[in-house]
Amino acid sequence: MNWTACDSSFDKARIITNGNKYMTGNGYMGYRGTLEEFGKEQLAAVTLAGVYDQAGERWREPVNAPNGLFTVLNCNGQRLSVLESEPLNHKQELDIRSAVHRRETIYRIPEGGELIFTAERFASMERLHVLAGRQTVQCTADCRITIETGIDSDVWDINGPHLQNKQEQFKDGVLLTSAITGELNLPVAVAELSVSGFGGLKLSKAGTLRRITFDAKAGETYEWFKYAAVYTGLDMEGDPEAAAEQAVQEAAEQGYLKLLQAQRRVWEERWSRCDCLIEGDEAAQFALRYSMYQLMIIAPTVSERVSIPARGLSGQVYKGAVFWDTEMFMLPFFLHCDPGVARNLMMYRIHTLDGARRKAAEYGYLGAFYAWESQDSGDDACTLFNVNDVYTGRPMRTYFRDKQVHISADVVHGIWQYILFTGDESLLIDGGAEVIWECARFFYSYAYYNPVKERYEILDVTGPDEYHERVNNNAFTNALVKETLEIALRCAEQLQNRHPVTFHELCAQFAGGPFLAEFQAMLEGLYIPQPDPDTLVIEQFDRYFKLEDVTLPELKSRVINKNEYWGGGNGLATTTRILKQADVVLMLNLFKSAFPKEVKQANWKFYEPRTEHGSSLSPCIYALVAADIGSPDWGYPYFMRTATVDLTGESKQYVGDLYIGGTHPAANGGAWMAAVLGFAGVQFDGQTIWLKPALPEHWQSIELPVTLRGDHYRLRVSRDEVIVTASAGNQEALGFAGYGGLVELCGPGTRLQLRFAKPAAAE
Amino acid sequence: MNWTACDSSFDKARIITNGNKYMTGNGYMGYRGTLEEFGKEQLAAVTLAGVYDQAGERWREPVNAPNGLFTVLNCNGQRLSVLESEPLNHKQELDIRSAVHRRETIYRIPEGGELIFTAERFASMERLHVLAGRQTVQCTADCRITIETGIDSDVWDINGPHLQNKQEQFKDGVLLTSAITGELNLPVAVAELSVSGFGGLKLSKAGTLRRITFDAKAGETYEWFKYAAVYTGLDMEGDPEAAAEQAVQEAAEQGYLKLLQAQRRVWEERWSRCDCLIEGDEAAQFALRYSMYQLMIIAPTVSERVSIPARGLSGQVYKGAVFWDTEMFMLPFFLHCDPGVARNLMMYRIHTLDGARRKAAEYGYLGAFYAWESQDSGDDACTLFNVNDVYTGRPMRTYFRDKQVHISADVVHGIWQYILFTGDESLLIDGGAEVIWECARFFYSYAYYNPVKERYEILDVTGPDEYHERVNNNAFTNALVKETLEIALRCAEQLQNRHPVTFHELCAQFAGGPFLAEFQAMLEGLYIPQPDPDTLVIEQFDRYFKLEDVTLPELKSRVINKNEYWGGGNGLATTTRILKQADVVLMLNLFKSAFPKEVKQANWKFYEPRTEHGSSLSPCIYALVAADIGSPDWGYPYFMRTATVDLTGESKQYVGDLYIGGTHPAANGGAWMAAVLGFAGVQFDGQTIWLKPALPEHWQSIELPVTLRGDHYRLRVSRDEVIVTASAGNQEALGFAGYGGLVELCGPGTRLQLRFAKPAAAE
Repeated sequence: MNWTACDSSFDKARIITNGNKYMTGNGYMGYRGTLEEFGKEQLAAVTLAGVYDQAGERWREPVNAPNGLFTVLNCNGQRLSVLESEPLNHKQELDIRSAVHRRETIYRIPEGGELIFTAERFASMERLHVLAGRQTVQCTADCRITIETGIDSDVWDINGPHLQNKQEQFKDGVLLTSAITGELNLPVAVAELSVSGFGGLKLSKAGTLRRITFDAKAGETYEWFKYAAVYTGLDMEGDPEAAAEQAVQEAAEQGYLKLLQAQRRVWEERWSRCDCLIEGDEAAQFALRYSMYQLMIIAPTVSERVSIPARGLSGQVYKGAVFWDTEMFMLPFFLHCDPGVARNLMMYRIHTLDGARRKAAEYGYLGAFYAWESQDSGDDACTLFNVNDVYTGRPMRTYFRDKQVHISADVVHGIWQYILFTGDESLLIDGGAEVIWECARFFYSYAYYNPVKERYEILDVTGPDEYHERVNNNAFTNALVKETLEIALRCAEQLQNRHPVTFHELCAQFAGGPFLAEFQAMLEGLYIPQPDPDTLVIEQFDRYFKLEDVTLPELKSRVINKNEYWGGGNGLATTTRILKQADVVLMLNLFKSAFPKEVKQANWKFYEPRTEHGSSLSPCIYALVAADIGSPDWGYPYFMRTATVDLTGESKQYVGDLYIGGTHPAANGGAWMAAVLGFAGVQFDGQTIWLKPALPEHWQSIELPVTLRGDHYRLRVSRDEVIVTASAGNQEALGFAGYGGLVELCGPGTRLQLRFAKPAAAE
Repeated sequence: MNWTACDSSFDKARIITNGNKYMTGNGYMGYRGTLEEFGKEQLAAVTLAGVYDQAGERWREPVNAPNGLFTVLNCNGQRLSVLESEPLNHKQELDIRSAVHRRETIYRIPEGGELIFTAERFASMERLHVLAGRQTVQCTADCRITIETGIDSDVWDINGPHLQNKQEQFKDGVLLTSAITGELNLPVAVAELSVSGFGGLKLSKAGTLRRITFDAKAGETYEWFKYAAVYTGLDMEGDPEAAAEQAVQEAAEQGYLKLLQAQRRVWEERWSRCDCLIEGDEAAQFALRYSMYQLMIIAPTVSERVSIPARGLSGQVYKGAVFWDTEMFMLPFFLHCDPGVARNLMMYRIHTLDGARRKAAEYGYLGAFYAWESQDSGDDACTLFNVNDVYTGRPMRTYFRDKQVHISADVVHGIWQYILFTGDESLLIDGGAEVIWECARFFYSYAYYNPVKERYEILDVTGPDEYHERVNNNAFTNALVKETLEIALRCAEQLQNRHPVTFHELCAQFAGGPFLAEFQAMLEGLYIPQPDPDTLVIEQFDRYFKLEDVTLPELKSRVINKNEYWGGGNGLATTTRILKQADVVLMLNLFKSAFPKEVKQANWKFYEPRTEHGSSLSPCIYALVAADIGSPDWGYPYFMRTATVDLTGESKQYVGDLYIGGTHPAANGGAWMAAVLGFAGVQFDGQTIWLKPALPEHWQSIELPVTLRGDHYRLRVSRDEVIVTASAGNQEALGFAGYGGLVELCGPGTRLQLRFAKPAAAE
């Protein structure tokens, strides 16, 4: 089975997209899929999770660390780099099974013969601060080779520079680059140690690079290992330099092969918890695995102070900020496959509650209004001007920061999903309940009461479809606000019943109100847009149906500048029914059991041709709902488009004149959702798992593990059979379930088998 | 004293602005100040009040009638026109005392000598359908002259053509052009009769033009008279052609001189009711009279089915639509000087109530939401796209139609002002009460209740300052809504006390509610933005103070295209504190007794440097409030700018790529307000007249007549004396008043004299 992404030629035009496609990482840092000789012009970057800096008045963004794996070769006085000499042969590949990147490049030696350079590297999942690499050179004719390797501290920055007072040292064979960030004065240290089997490397005059020159013999393989480590002031009270130095020394002592073995072991264990097997569709199989891979290399496995930014750890795009994407598009994967990461993600929201409180207060509201673009403190990194007008070059006012209020509901949704999936109520006690209630309080203060219609309304919001800003009663937002209120009440009930002391203490904090009584009143009176009785279509927001009903091709024909933004004040789409992304359909997917199939179908059919998919978050939702309404083949192209977004690199690179490239974790999570929650039809409400498979035509089966409330199950869905296998300790749950309990089958014509893995398992 | 506007040379560049400057009219029709030989290219137009037509999908606009005063001369085979031959001498003048237009042009005869052409004309105030003219030709050398005169039916249209099936007839010496409008099939007929003392004019082959050719003798004056009449299907059930024909026959029978005498008589009477005498400022004296003139030539003296459009009767700009300007900027003049016209203006709103009801229902509200751009039916002629983006050429969404809700409050304000000034409660019974209550119901349904702040708010509106659309709690709008609720309650009280039967009947109609109880509740809970305790500045709307505080010159320096619109989605001003026009200051002017001087001063000083005056409605308000706060000299330049706007032609001609030229009745009314309500300090609340003069430095005095509750008074305000003269029948009112009753003096250091015109009057 295929676990490898591969390019077997070098194409300058793909440097940037390959930087995304060949990403490695371990949640502590991301390492872009660049080649060893690349520098900042090629967007080489070691992006650190959760480390932010603001330079001057520019956008605050993540800090890129100096690149400790930098290496460039020189043969007979000629620099060897794919940027300068066309290679005879070039291969770049990524082993997603153990997150190892490899390149092999064959250069022609001008004086005759060939030189083969290989490099392998990974960001250690066992030692999160460590990058390890193995590089070799071999030639078919004797030649004189110079290796320059060390730390490239001339880092790529979009809104930098962020690293101040750069210091370079060489101590006990270790190269050390250290600096401090300009805004928070956080120390950042990178140590590097190179070990060669063919003679010690020596520090060059360049300061941060070692240089060794030797006469290479034809046929001989020269191999060296590189260890780099990154530490920042966020990791410790003490001295990051010492820690980095120690880390490379220890890594070198352990040795590359053992590090690699550990890497494989850890990754094997990770895959065992999530790998989905698709029978009948090799391309989908690989794309789905690749999507999970992208999620896993950026997931915070140990820190609850960071979450996953919209572009993962693939650089500084979107300010390294965490959006609603995390809860709504990535969290489901972790909930099913890695609840520990899910907990960290939600703890991040708890830790940033004060920032959300500050934002609410800034706008005159109560409670918590989460940042549209969240960084370390939870204060909003989103500006009021997010796109430049391509015609005038002027910043354009956008209503993301102040009007996309659904973010607070998304956070609550995520927390409650975590509670449902894990039963781990400690999250509520650790701050989750406070977040939930503060968000409910925010919405209570945001809502208005319409005295004529006798209902609460949510006015002046921007929904997921950002092409329509400042709308009233957005169906998605209102439904999410309703859920927030329901969760706020349910959370209170649950704490009161099971943790009365905690509940009592927390209540005191909210005694000033509005609190539960007001939430209840608002819940009862909240307006929720309903399906039109004739068409069954739910209006996306008040008066959406009054907008121009233009077709997407017609609207595209009106484009004057291909980079022009379709939203904002004068955007092409704003006065039409064309959507940026799924909005009502996304709501129907979130609350799928609340709507009959006919409603979902009618809305899919209505909104699908009107959706531009200007966001990578959009197509997967159409795939999910297509599966839900029993039309998986309508959804399959959307699934594939989503699952391959970082493989093809065919996503939007610009909005207005703003570069927005990078990886697409939300799409990665969306691909997983489409396959598992869509085609396999897995649905869990905290008590019962429903299986309502709808496999695309050429899929024979899909098989996957899930972790529900701490227990592991294996699900296999084929055209005529659903098999649920529980681990031995878990017999009871499964046994209890039968056909109406833990497992419930919704699809027609399929047969359910329940199995126990050990000792009872048998066909 | 000067009553004449005059140009003594011909300048092609001023053809369009002179068309405005030299306007004549009589409220039934406007005749642009063009020359006799001008056609549609020079924007010659006879614009009919209240006759609208829509051609295809284009904007609905007023109909221009064929021009029955068209004349062109030919001398020795050469066409004489200022457009083709440079005249030796040219004079165009307007006698505003009797609304008579004159031109005199001297052409060189190529064969030697000069030819003098004179033309005088007026739109009869006595016979509203009639235009009359006297034309002469004289030469200093014998020559052969051809006169072509008749009806030019090739009319100027912006969004035409509107006249279909044009028919031309010649019957009993009368030329007749008739047509029907495309949309409503209204017949439009123009008749023309020319009478010469030197031989009959004969119909030429051209069909609508008469042609006479004769050998002119040097020194002899050849004189002829023209009578044209316009009738439409709106004027009668029967045949407009016959009526037009009869009208010109009757006019000709009466003869030009008698018509002119009648014209002078009627105008003398009109001026006696309004002429303001300014001592010490000739320029201001003329500009103020000119402003009143412009108002009087477009005022509906007999019809209560039309009101005054934003560009008067100067053409089709702004669709010939009636805006809030009428109530807020023109009505005060008529209330003080011609209450009959004021009644017609307000009856127009009563007749268009159903259109306002339809608009409210269209947007899901109760009651009456008056048209932003009102035509004959009261349905809104305003589109959602009012300006084109100069960069892309695309229509730009503007929020005039759907968010400028203050229009309904402006209408209520106007009606109530009429009641206060005249005591004529019949207007309430004739529909005024219904309008008031329907507008209050509209606002009740538009408002939202904020449960946390426990108040009603008015959200998502555009105030007078159109550069800031879709704002919350606009100080102007909220104050006007409050006034509407107060008036609704006061109106009920007044009717209940004095017309209980009518009140009872009307109440039944509103029994379904919301009605008085709800108005009372909303009034008590309505949020009204208050002056900041420290700065005394009232925030124009929620979060206005958070906008960029850029200076006007700095903002101007950012302009890329001089015609770019500063408002709308991406407008330069929208994200700054720069205003299009007075907004808070206008509110302070409307409710001047509700705020102390310090508040008015603080707001004047704060907002004045931030106001672009992108509307001709703006400067007069700064003049008014400057006078109110005792700084008339701050206001004087704004007064002069307002009073001369149609004389200089220095107003905005384009917004985006939209032509918006024409006369400025709101500025004309604003000039009167600044002089009388501002500098003379006249303020009447229905019971007491306050006089709080604040004369500009070089004004010695201002003297004017006013009509209050049916009685005529003459006010003379000088630096040290205020004299109020009442007509004889009115002694009681004045006698009763003394210093604390009808007349109250607010200014310090002035002495009040009360006089009676007859028989008691004496110094």
